[in-house]
Amino acid sequence: MITTFEQIYDLLRSKTKKRLVAAWGVDDHTITAASKAIELGIVDVTLVGDSAMIAKVCEEEKIDMSIFTIFDYKEELKAIAYAIDLINAGEGDILMKGLCSTDKYMRAILNKERGLLPPKATLSHVSVLQNPNYKKLIILGDMAVIPAPDLKQKVAITNYVVNTAKALGNTMPKVAFIAATEQMLEGMLACVDAAVLSKKCDRGEIKGCVGDGPLALDVAISPEAVEIKKLKSPVAGDADCLVFPNIESANVFYKSNSQLMKGVKQAAIMVGAKAPCVLSSRADSIETKLNSIALAAATAK
Amino acid sequence: MITTFEQIYDLLRSKTKKRLVAAWGVDDHTITAASKAIELGIVDVTLVGDSAMIAKVCEEEKIDMSIFTIFDYKEELKAIAYAIDLINAGEGDILMKGLCSTDKYMRAILNKERGLLPPKATLSHVSVLQNPNYKKLIILGDMAVIPAPDLKQKVAITNYVVNTAKALGNTMPKVAFIAATEQMLEGMLACVDAAVLSKKCDRGEIKGCVGDGPLALDVAISPEAVEIKKLKSPVAGDADCLVFPNIESANVFYKSNSQLMKGVKQAAIMVGAKAPCVLSSRADSIETKLNSIALAAATAK
Repeated sequence: MITTFEQIYDLLRSKTKKRLVAAWGVDDHTITAASKAIELGIVDVTLVGDSAMIAKVCEEEKIDMSIFTIFDYKEELKAIAYAIDLINAGEGDILMKGLCSTDKYMRAILNKERGLLPPKATLSHVSVLQNPNYKKLIILGDMAVIPAPDLKQKVAITNYVVNTAKALGNTMPKVAFIAATEQMLEGMLACVDAAVLSKKCDRGEIKGCVGDGPLALDVAISPEAVEIKKLKSPVAGDADCLVFPNIESANVFYKSNSQLMKGVKQAAIMVGAKAPCVLSSRADSIETKLNSIALAAATAK
Repeated sequence: MITTFEQIYDLLRSKTKKRLVAAWGVDDHTITAASKAIELGIVDVTLVGDSAMIAKVCEEEKIDMSIFTIFDYKEELKAIAYAIDLINAGEGDILMKGLCSTDKYMRAILNKERGLLPPKATLSHVSVLQNPNYKKLIILGDMAVIPAPDLKQKVAITNYVVNTAKALGNTMPKVAFIAATEQMLEGMLACVDAAVLSKKCDRGEIKGCVGDGPLALDVAISPEAVEIKKLKSPVAGDADCLVFPNIESANVFYKSNSQLMKGVKQAAIMVGAKAPCVLSSRADSIETKLNSIALAAATAK
């Protein structure tokens, strides 16, 4: 079982390389991250965008342009659409956002005729954190895409985090359904939904994991807290995956880790489309961008 | 302005001591914390409970029993009620939970005839964190009492964190209304409420603070994130107080700090009653209990 990002890189180097397609991949951030990913041996890269802009960046950044496959599209929207066509045609395994806005990128993915979303699929978001104060990777959803997940969407989120854990070699991940308390308070929706989700795991309606909740964050991840509270749970103190009850709690968890702690490594991908989509922002460090590419490659079909 | 717990202790030693009343204060946890608080010079302590039980603990823990004022009540419920009577009679400034269950403690506080809640008051919860990776104390609400605050309750929470900041010497605290994003997405309740709360601060309907939101956690506390996202805000990157949109996000923030980071100091009190109430659990360290007593003493009238 993989417990660090370093091990994800090792895993990828031992397998056939996945093909990353960067939509409007014409800026220094995208091209630098893509070249480093090639250097690390974790993906092959296709850039879809204006080849003159790409050539300029490569010259400035001293990157050998021949390491990329390039499809020359001078217009942003056409470049994005062609990048998605490549994925739909089986010519790419991972989509990555280039210089285009998140809005344009998302519209293209969600486009009914030419997009990437299978019928009835739920688009969601999976993040992975490596925190030096926890013994393994933490896989969580959804901090960025579904604002107020209903029960059906929480089932989808659960399946996504479980599938991510499996892609990282964890055959039976432990999933904590997070609430503000581990008391089964029937007046709190997060608690009620957590109980229902737990039972769905017990009944095999959600497969391939051990699930329990409601669990407050402390008992989900701290064996000491479990000991003090004398809680009996097959998940508490040892969670691999955290399913949060709303986007705010997931977002706050991820950003507490990234902003207020030292030595945390992180990655995030969008899931539910035909291929994992990397949606990193300019604010992400190069390391986070590479981790996200690696996560996408590890989970791509 | 106070930026560390150590400075709160200094402040308390320079002022008239507040009187802490421990309801059913008969156990080693409560009595040890109370004796250390006296030793640190931050409060005077009255224990209401079975004097034989108190004597036994004092003997075992080698604590001089004469440092306490003791009211001998052999029955738990009567002890709790009398402790509250003392506060109502002006004989105590802070209530602290002893060995009694949270349930009994809360019922007594909420009791209509003999409790501590003023008419129409909103009971809430304020926490304070000292994180080595942030330049000052973080004051937040509500991680424990109001499950899904409506706008009126969010106003109350805001006033509580602002009053806490003022008690700690911050005359014009910066309040961040937290959401999953700083984009003003009208489909997300947390964003809409944050905008309304901000405007209430602008209009002086919420007084004595500078408020802004919606702010995601990263831009609330990280000047670097603000710089990268080119956000203009009088609060972003420098928040003193965080008002969370729901109990889960606040709870997750507090517990991420306490469980996944090293060197974090913390305190929590219940507010909205006639006196601040300390509601620490057996799981809290002695340091956290003392910090909570200090916070209560600093905010008590």
